[in-house]
Amino acid sequence: MRIVRVLHEKKPHWGILESEKICLLKEPPFKAVRRSRNYIPIPKACLLAPSLPSKIIFVGLNYRNHARELGMKVPKEPVIFLKPTTTLLAPGADIVFPPQVRRLDYEAELAVVIKCRAKNVSEDRVQEYILGYTCCNDVTARDLQKKDGQWTRAKSFDTFCPLGPWIETNLNPADLTICSYLNNKLRQKSSTRNLIFSVPRLVSFISRVMTLLPGDVISTGTPPGVGSMKPHDRIDVAIEGIGHLRNCVVKF
Amino acid sequence: MRIVRVLHEKKPHWGILESEKICLLKEPPFKAVRRSRNYIPIPKACLLAPSLPSKIIFVGLNYRNHARELGMKVPKEPVIFLKPTTTLLAPGADIVFPPQVRRLDYEAELAVVIKCRAKNVSEDRVQEYILGYTCCNDVTARDLQKKDGQWTRAKSFDTFCPLGPWIETNLNPADLTICSYLNNKLRQKSSTRNLIFSVPRLVSFISRVMTLLPGDVISTGTPPGVGSMKPHDRIDVAIEGIGHLRNCVVKF
Repeated sequence: MRIVRVLHEKKPHWGILESEKICLLKEPPFKAVRRSRNYIPIPKACLLAPSLPSKIIFVGLNYRNHARELGMKVPKEPVIFLKPTTTLLAPGADIVFPPQVRRLDYEAELAVVIKCRAKNVSEDRVQEYILGYTCCNDVTARDLQKKDGQWTRAKSFDTFCPLGPWIETNLNPADLTICSYLNNKLRQKSSTRNLIFSVPRLVSFISRVMTLLPGDVISTGTPPGVGSMKPHDRIDVAIEGIGHLRNCVVKF
Repeated sequence: MRIVRVLHEKKPHWGILESEKICLLKEPPFKAVRRSRNYIPIPKACLLAPSLPSKIIFVGLNYRNHARELGMKVPKEPVIFLKPTTTLLAPGADIVFPPQVRRLDYEAELAVVIKCRAKNVSEDRVQEYILGYTCCNDVTARDLQKKDGQWTRAKSFDTFCPLGPWIETNLNPADLTICSYLNNKLRQKSSTRNLIFSVPRLVSFISRVMTLLPGDVISTGTPPGVGSMKPHDRIDVAIEGIGHLRNCVVKF
């Protein structure tokens, strides 16, 4: 099942993507998926980022080769950071290149969306707490990341978290091809089997630090091949079994 | 004026602290403070953290001597990090010492609460965007902070952001005495005049990265004298013109 959020008559709604239309839901999909009788034809639908998280947690350096390409050590435990929810960007919307940034990078990532409150969850129970999976672009001001040491500012500008296009609920995250394309040219290609820390390990680890709430997003790290974007570039994150998340870069 | 959030008949409410009672508000205090006719006597009031932020932004190393005591360089620009909102803790509630932490530190800080949407605000206009000020304790797992390099995990455990006891709206933040007391013994004492980056500078700087929303919290960094806490310890953050934020530490 593909869960979307969509703008309809100027209001955000949850919905289910069907073959030729979107069926609106009566309530958020966390407890149960309750279809309404209202449908929107897909050509008229304006998709939003497919979750409304209270927090967005990212995992750094979670593909062995990406750590190497940045000249950083492979961590023994997951390294986490947060983006504010004001970074969220809808599929198709524009990434804004900030005036104080010199180098703006894409990072294709598989993101997990949390279904229900999760605290101190063991790895073998993680599946019960996951609603589904979506594509995420961990947009990063690489120059500020190096300058600050701490990664937060470099990753927290408005529009730096494209997410979508939908949440795929029926998916095994253990071995999915993940790619990015800059202006249609392949730039990143790997598989989630190359994750240093698996999805169950990450969700369990993070739930032992902070309580996860319905809709919270965990983005699982990016494979090698990161590179920079310029205004007018188009960037796609594509994950097997989910789809394409496409955004363009615009000047501030 | 002192703005509180209070639990009344099992529901959270906004209120105004008066001499002997709390006057409940008709709506959140961001657009206007609209008193209701409902009052709670203070002895019966259960205070909550005085804001419901969408994000909590912290500034690292913002008192010169604190950077030195940690052996870190004084930054040329503010270094920021985030805590998830699940870290928020009410005045009087317990800080939980997590099992995976060895050293748990207090950090007394002045926190700014945002009044209205703020993006690209110039320093001389910052005042229009501030609702008021409160006390914050930037509880930190010092061992994990050193181990991870990134500070997020060390600062993101549930209960690691005591905030309160209220928002003081009528206050000039330029020269306020700020102290912490561990079991009634003075441990930190400084003045906000020793901030490397002032409140207007910080709010302006952060608003050029991310859009600030009503209720968002910016905590301005801690002075020298940080130290560790153990279960059963009592920690007070005290700021001139605001009051005392007191919490105890409990074992997991």
